[in-house]
Amino acid sequence: MKIDKLVGERFKEKPSDCVVDSHALMLRGGYMKGVANGIYSSFMPLRRVTKKIENIIREEMDAIEGQEVQFPVVMPGSLWAESGRYDSIGSELLRFKDRNDIPMVLGMTHEEAAVQLVRDYANSYTKYPFMIYQIQTKFRDEARPRAGLIRVREFTMKDAYSFHTSQEDLERYYAVCYDAYNRIFARCGIPEVVTVQSDSGMMGGSISHEYMLLTAIGEDSIAICKDCDYRANMEAAESIIENKKHEDAKALELVNTPDMHTIEEVCTFLKADVVDSCKAVVYQKNMTDEYVVVFIRGDLDVNETKLTNYLGENIHPAVITEECGLNAGFIGPVGLDTNKFTILYDKSLENTNNLCCGANKVDYHYTGLDISRDIGEVEYLDLAKIIEGGICPKCGKHSISISRGIEVGNIFQLGTKYTKSMGMQYLDSEGNLHYPIMGCYGIGVGRLAASVCEVHHDDYGPIWPMSIAPWQVQLCCLRADDEECKAVSDKFYEQMLADKMEVIYDDRNIRPGAMFSDADLLGVPVRVIVSPRNLKEGVCEIVTRDKEISLKVELDKVIETVKGIIADRLK
Amino acid sequence: MKIDKLVGERFKEKPSDCVVDSHALMLRGGYMKGVANGIYSSFMPLRRVTKKIENIIREEMDAIEGQEVQFPVVMPGSLWAESGRYDSIGSELLRFKDRNDIPMVLGMTHEEAAVQLVRDYANSYTKYPFMIYQIQTKFRDEARPRAGLIRVREFTMKDAYSFHTSQEDLERYYAVCYDAYNRIFARCGIPEVVTVQSDSGMMGGSISHEYMLLTAIGEDSIAICKDCDYRANMEAAESIIENKKHEDAKALELVNTPDMHTIEEVCTFLKADVVDSCKAVVYQKNMTDEYVVVFIRGDLDVNETKLTNYLGENIHPAVITEECGLNAGFIGPVGLDTNKFTILYDKSLENTNNLCCGANKVDYHYTGLDISRDIGEVEYLDLAKIIEGGICPKCGKHSISISRGIEVGNIFQLGTKYTKSMGMQYLDSEGNLHYPIMGCYGIGVGRLAASVCEVHHDDYGPIWPMSIAPWQVQLCCLRADDEECKAVSDKFYEQMLADKMEVIYDDRNIRPGAMFSDADLLGVPVRVIVSPRNLKEGVCEIVTRDKEISLKVELDKVIETVKGIIADRLK
Repeated sequence: MKIDKLVGERFKEKPSDCVVDSHALMLRGGYMKGVANGIYSSFMPLRRVTKKIENIIREEMDAIEGQEVQFPVVMPGSLWAESGRYDSIGSELLRFKDRNDIPMVLGMTHEEAAVQLVRDYANSYTKYPFMIYQIQTKFRDEARPRAGLIRVREFTMKDAYSFHTSQEDLERYYAVCYDAYNRIFARCGIPEVVTVQSDSGMMGGSISHEYMLLTAIGEDSIAICKDCDYRANMEAAESIIENKKHEDAKALELVNTPDMHTIEEVCTFLKADVVDSCKAVVYQKNMTDEYVVVFIRGDLDVNETKLTNYLGENIHPAVITEECGLNAGFIGPVGLDTNKFTILYDKSLENTNNLCCGANKVDYHYTGLDISRDIGEVEYLDLAKIIEGGICPKCGKHSISISRGIEVGNIFQLGTKYTKSMGMQYLDSEGNLHYPIMGCYGIGVGRLAASVCEVHHDDYGPIWPMSIAPWQVQLCCLRADDEECKAVSDKFYEQMLADKMEVIYDDRNIRPGAMFSDADLLGVPVRVIVSPRNLKEGVCEIVTRDKEISLKVELDKVIETVKGIIADRLK
Repeated sequence: MKIDKLVGERFKEKPSDCVVDSHALMLRGGYMKGVANGIYSSFMPLRRVTKKIENIIREEMDAIEGQEVQFPVVMPGSLWAESGRYDSIGSELLRFKDRNDIPMVLGMTHEEAAVQLVRDYANSYTKYPFMIYQIQTKFRDEARPRAGLIRVREFTMKDAYSFHTSQEDLERYYAVCYDAYNRIFARCGIPEVVTVQSDSGMMGGSISHEYMLLTAIGEDSIAICKDCDYRANMEAAESIIENKKHEDAKALELVNTPDMHTIEEVCTFLKADVVDSCKAVVYQKNMTDEYVVVFIRGDLDVNETKLTNYLGENIHPAVITEECGLNAGFIGPVGLDTNKFTILYDKSLENTNNLCCGANKVDYHYTGLDISRDIGEVEYLDLAKIIEGGICPKCGKHSISISRGIEVGNIFQLGTKYTKSMGMQYLDSEGNLHYPIMGCYGIGVGRLAASVCEVHHDDYGPIWPMSIAPWQVQLCCLRADDEECKAVSDKFYEQMLADKMEVIYDDRNIRPGAMFSDADLLGVPVRVIVSPRNLKEGVCEIVTRDKEISLKVELDKVIETVKGIIADRLK
């Protein structure tokens, strides 16, 4: 098509509210426009990118025997009540009532719909295994949409659900899907995506992986071992601490610590190492407001995902009132009412002594705490966040490094959470009933597009891989007012269209600088530049957006050369 | 793929709640499953059909310079308030609030979103004309979903919006789109679709057309002239009545009509022709409950769409209370309070006399009414429904016939309704501001699939046209337990896959009857049947679902023959 007809504004200035490059470039390049907080419309260039991504996903899902289906965006609340998620999910699940006052939800994921679709059909072991998937709009009422298409409220997602009669078969298929995902990301131009173990959270199940594109703007933190292949989402990474008791065990002693509220202040005042302190972090359960006190080594932080998973319910940071029985800033394990509060100990406190801790009394702390001696036997849980330089849970070396990443896909072994709660069963060959075992597999299409842009761009625009570029070739007629230049360009355009190349043609009568700025923003991989100066030498220029290729090519070799570059990059 | 892995139930019994064949066949064939009232999930066969329809639509929209974009499903209510539709549309527009209590709507159409997307960009006449379209999920909270995919609440729709600087240019493009629509329906296998003039209703604008597939199960009524090319939706068809006064004019006379409430009862009692009666039909305005009394010839019905358009507001059939001042069953024009009620006269009463009508008094009617004589000069409006055998508004003959049809698409000339209300303007070449003129163009994908099924099926299943069939070929191995039969079938399957044919392979060890029932339900155009009996003769059978072709073909000619049939039918 011709660029002068391309609907969408392109501009130079970085919008002030953009914190990541892909967001700014997609606004500047006329890829999309905001409609509401976290809700966008796509212009043609982005829609062309997302369609190509969708087709790559489709091909790879079909290749592993996926059957494309379609679930509704709007579902009855009663369906989500069957699995229990109508009540258990927070306000990110958008609930409303239809004209007949029937509770409905907007689909943010489709496990319930998948089970509903197949539970009558898949009543015999002979029907298994199978996988169904869809590419469909989803809505998740995020509290804080951010970073353009990286975290939105409405998005297009490929979600797949597989059904199996044994854990072994699920694992076999899970591995197949694992590989298909790697192929999808490689084909979309980001083969560098890594998989990490993750927490399954509200999805249920146990084993799951996230596909992470490592970049500083990612909102996930990933623990990566420098010495072995261990990689895990911070939320899921086990925190390993090696403790030794001090040999000169001290006695428990009450000390006055006036106006000191943080563990750092107390340690400085007492000249103690923060490693020898026992910090209290207090939460409340969302449902009951009951207080949960977590004791943890002073230099570590609580991993709230682990805590939520352990408690089996959602929590929030505590509001400590005067009547609640806790002395904010002075909370410690000694004398704390175990009937009144849920009290948990992190593993970092196991086998320690000579700790300082709050004394549950304003302006007082204890020193010399030894939990086993002063409190007795307690259970030590893994509730801490893994730290930079921490111990790798796999190889045991102090080799953990923390990186940021964007989650571009995830795969889960769901188990029977949904089939059990929703009463889906099949008969085995001996006539016994079982609950099928599920896996689920998601990729956000828009986020993937933005992620590719995030790692493949320069200051002037995206550098799209050939496989998902909005067009393959940008044809620039540098002097539309020059008869020969225009005639040669027009002829190339016709030939390219006839050869089914995806070409966008710029024959506007504008300055070369403006023309190239627009081309940079569209990020088309191959650029063919026709100018009077080059025509004098009987050539024109072929350059690639990524600067890898820059050629002067004789006119009768141009089409062939461009074709070759396209074919080479689609391999 | 192999049919034994195809997810979805196929069954023989017609579901009791199905009133149309396409609904029953799509449930019986494992095409879809209900999730809630008017909300369905699609299994793979239907998704394959809808994807092919979507691609045909895409190709035709791209061919007329459409730019594919994507608007959100969930939009802020404030966007719809800009056009006024947030308030003017009834409860079919699903409104709700997000987690921050912001009013949102589910898109049932996207005029507002289209204007929002382009109003900053299209600020100069040089950017015009252009057309943008999307294929996206929509939600319309229908009071009475019915007939399977014919009238649902959630559906996939292609909606397109064009923008122009003159009415002439809109009309030029409207004609281009008109033709593209005809190509789309022809390519989808229903070239018999006709266009009719329609009422634009809430979309605004004036000229619009509906694409109607004539079938008895359609929910629209269409007036078609048998003598000329006039075709219109009943809602839009002008009602032409030729009246003559009786020569023996009678005087107005009050007569006792005890217990007679309908115009038919009164006419029978008075031995009058119902054509010589003046019937009252009473409505109330939705906003104010004000009464609207329509007087119309006794044998005609009020066209509520015309009435709504005339009044400019929505109405409902009246609830006549004791205090309201109307005597139900005895309402007539003589003495009715014009200050208290909106009183309207249909054209069918113009130039008439000797009418019987209510006397606004219980158990009394008048005879001998002549409105011009007894009431005075009134305005006569076109408020009646056109009738079978009525006068054609175009050729003037008594040649109107009423048919039923399914609306499979529509095109509207919107004018400036949305650009004006939403403040979208452009500068012309002389620096003056104007509102662009819009057209909009819709096709429901699922309804189109169901419509094709509705007119192309037999008792055993759909008969899909090659262009949108879920698969092109169904390969039936009639005796999977026969070694040669299985080997030959397997080899065909491999060859067909290698040749990129879309093949579904049935190699289950089941009775031929069951195999053919399933094949009938899938409606695949070409069937290749491999049986031991035919193999003895060195042939296999090739038949088409529509029974047009039935051949015995030598084994080495099978692939070539099938290819030929497919190519021929895709022409």
